[in-house]
Amino acid sequence: MKVAKFGGSSLSSASQIKKVANIIRNDSNIRFVVVSAPGKRNDSDIKITDLLIALHTNHSIGISTTSIENQIIDRYQQIAEDLDIDVAIVKEFQAQLHDLLQTITNSERLLDALKSCGEDFNAQLISQYFNKIGLEAEYKSPEAMGIFVTDEPGNAQLLKESYGKIAENKDSDKVLVIPGFFGVSKKGDIVTFSRGGSDITGAIIARGVEADIYENYTDQSHIYSAHPGIVKNPHAINEITYREMRELAYSGFGIFHDEALTPLYEVRIPIQIKNTNAPEIVGTKIVVDRGEVKKYPVIGVSGDEGFISVTIKRYLLNREVGYTRRLLQIFEDHDINVEHIPTGIDDISVVMRANQFENNNKLEELLEDIEQQFEPEWIHVERDLAIIAIVGEGMRDTIGIANKATAAFADSNISLRMINQGASEISMFFAIPSKDLKKALNNLYQNYFEK
Amino acid sequence: MKVAKFGGSSLSSASQIKKVANIIRNDSNIRFVVVSAPGKRNDSDIKITDLLIALHTNHSIGISTTSIENQIIDRYQQIAEDLDIDVAIVKEFQAQLHDLLQTITNSERLLDALKSCGEDFNAQLISQYFNKIGLEAEYKSPEAMGIFVTDEPGNAQLLKESYGKIAENKDSDKVLVIPGFFGVSKKGDIVTFSRGGSDITGAIIARGVEADIYENYTDQSHIYSAHPGIVKNPHAINEITYREMRELAYSGFGIFHDEALTPLYEVRIPIQIKNTNAPEIVGTKIVVDRGEVKKYPVIGVSGDEGFISVTIKRYLLNREVGYTRRLLQIFEDHDINVEHIPTGIDDISVVMRANQFENNNKLEELLEDIEQQFEPEWIHVERDLAIIAIVGEGMRDTIGIANKATAAFADSNISLRMINQGASEISMFFAIPSKDLKKALNNLYQNYFEK
Repeated sequence: MKVAKFGGSSLSSASQIKKVANIIRNDSNIRFVVVSAPGKRNDSDIKITDLLIALHTNHSIGISTTSIENQIIDRYQQIAEDLDIDVAIVKEFQAQLHDLLQTITNSERLLDALKSCGEDFNAQLISQYFNKIGLEAEYKSPEAMGIFVTDEPGNAQLLKESYGKIAENKDSDKVLVIPGFFGVSKKGDIVTFSRGGSDITGAIIARGVEADIYENYTDQSHIYSAHPGIVKNPHAINEITYREMRELAYSGFGIFHDEALTPLYEVRIPIQIKNTNAPEIVGTKIVVDRGEVKKYPVIGVSGDEGFISVTIKRYLLNREVGYTRRLLQIFEDHDINVEHIPTGIDDISVVMRANQFENNNKLEELLEDIEQQFEPEWIHVERDLAIIAIVGEGMRDTIGIANKATAAFADSNISLRMINQGASEISMFFAIPSKDLKKALNNLYQNYFEK
Repeated sequence: MKVAKFGGSSLSSASQIKKVANIIRNDSNIRFVVVSAPGKRNDSDIKITDLLIALHTNHSIGISTTSIENQIIDRYQQIAEDLDIDVAIVKEFQAQLHDLLQTITNSERLLDALKSCGEDFNAQLISQYFNKIGLEAEYKSPEAMGIFVTDEPGNAQLLKESYGKIAENKDSDKVLVIPGFFGVSKKGDIVTFSRGGSDITGAIIARGVEADIYENYTDQSHIYSAHPGIVKNPHAINEITYREMRELAYSGFGIFHDEALTPLYEVRIPIQIKNTNAPEIVGTKIVVDRGEVKKYPVIGVSGDEGFISVTIKRYLLNREVGYTRRLLQIFEDHDINVEHIPTGIDDISVVMRANQFENNNKLEELLEDIEQQFEPEWIHVERDLAIIAIVGEGMRDTIGIANKATAAFADSNISLRMINQGASEISMFFAIPSKDLKKALNNLYQNYFEK
């Protein structure tokens, strides 16, 4: 039995929704369908969710909301008409939006409630369409499904007891259509997950009903061994482990929310990446353990910009017990998340994301504290760093992985600012100047996958 | 003006002392001579310092000390006779030993006083010999030189005010001969430096009298770019920086005590390594900044065994703020010094010297604490690791340094357990299985110095 989740681009128009219906019709194992709000139909289109956020903004600052409301309703009206279903339901949507704007006074609550409409209206439309074409389906609100969450607006966390409630829906005769992205609090308020949260709903449902597999449909068939926007025609991945996904996602592979992976990782339910526009392609499977570790010791290379390093140096630093711990304490006191800590004998570097220093004084204050507590001979800040990750479960048992990487950097005349590889050896990290990122990724890809 | 320090093997016999006298005679810039106790004359010989320690042990447990005393006195007697100086002084040494054994009741104080005799007697003999051959010299005790130290037996630390007192001896007409290895406390007790401490005395005198250079004479002419016991005929280093020395010393180059380097590093006095048996060779100079950084970006490769790593892994570890700091706190609480901390996304390794776990329960207790505080999915201990350091001030500005290293490992089929290179880039560290250390060092040497 399967849970399938469809992303915004898969549900952006009547023609997309028809593709989804075909997928469900052709696979009787799909018993639960989690839907996103309608996404962009083309590059210049606006997502329904963004329109709902704009509606909230305009309402908050007292500007007329009519035009945006119309834009939202027109979109659903168009879908309903194109699907040839009763448009009465769209009138109900409009009434519901009005009602929310008038009854909810707390601004954050209102935002969550409005945002949830994108998915909620879509689920109702889609369920009605399924029934019209003879696919027995039922719309189920998150409340009816038993998705109970904590009370922090925009950052709902699932209450563990929900899994038991969700399981009660396991044996429905009908295909259940569930809006993604939100749950309800114990007090009955609608609370959304963090952005991209329809994946979270899908994962929660899959775990709750103990699905054999969780199918995640977008407009992509695969995860690739390198970013297709940077490396030309990269190799498509058949199987990747959760841990590999995490390590790749860290440096630029923004496919899944961590929070969406966790519920499934814990119970070892695999995720199948599928393409709504080409469902015949098997796609990439995310698993706990993968085969083919020997054939593909490295699963992918990825990179991300926007890192900064602080290096301090003082003669005999290494003889001071606990100096690393004390240094990290300073970063923690300044609320800075640290990524890598390469150490020399009398120097230590701390590498972190630069966006944590958007308030410029924050870096100065940090450096001042380090100066005062460590009196280093030398303190050096390096900006505009990129971090490259080479990831693969098979690296541990394969000689020469590091050498292929360093050869790629040396051949393209790239200066290595940091190397970090630990004993678990599922990943290896390199810091280089940001300007060299594209060149580096292309050369690495060549070395691992084409030579 | 120079300060010259001579090691134990340079002063082990009359013939060695004659070489030293020649060196002083041929270089009128040497105004201060710091001497060690007589060392080994051959492999089966015993150092005077070890005999003095044995004397203390026998005395403490109430065994007759006559035989050891005689061995010590005979050694000095032999030197005096061979140098053809008045042996009356050796009788005084004997009386002094007796006196110490009878008057000092505190065992630690007695040990320090006895150990200091090795250097002290030798300085007196040598000064007398210098005068006999027409080299105007004067024996100066550490007290007379103004070397005042803290009161911890066996671990004296210089009191900063000493430098002013030492400076008062700057303009002596005579060559001053000073025993190394000890100073006096404010209360007048003799306190020794940590072992190898004659180097410390030499450095302190050089700084106190503001020497232009500190010459350190042993039976070696050079520091080499690799350990001559492991790599055949390694390249001799002309100039090396203090920092490079520190990084090399960390992994197996045991040439200098850190404590001996610090006083000189702070005031930028260079150290010249010289060989008593071949003083015509210029030797290796230790400096604050070196030339030839372009020609020799890497100055040396070294390695040491006896490391252990602990790796923990838990899904989403990386999302917890401060987890590295908390983990290091556990190691600190268990009094474990940590050397390297390579990090993955959801795992972290801690590499340290294994001799800290000689009490076997210590490791188990540490692991138990980690288990309890981190609940990792997986905790792995890897033993028998060696760490290799590649060191050089020029590495920062040279592309391809890392690649030469990883090529050496890959070509010899060596599995890399850890790589650590930080932003200061004066060194790069690799952990490998201990069994591969020799092979790795030889291949690295080839790649950096012979290709």
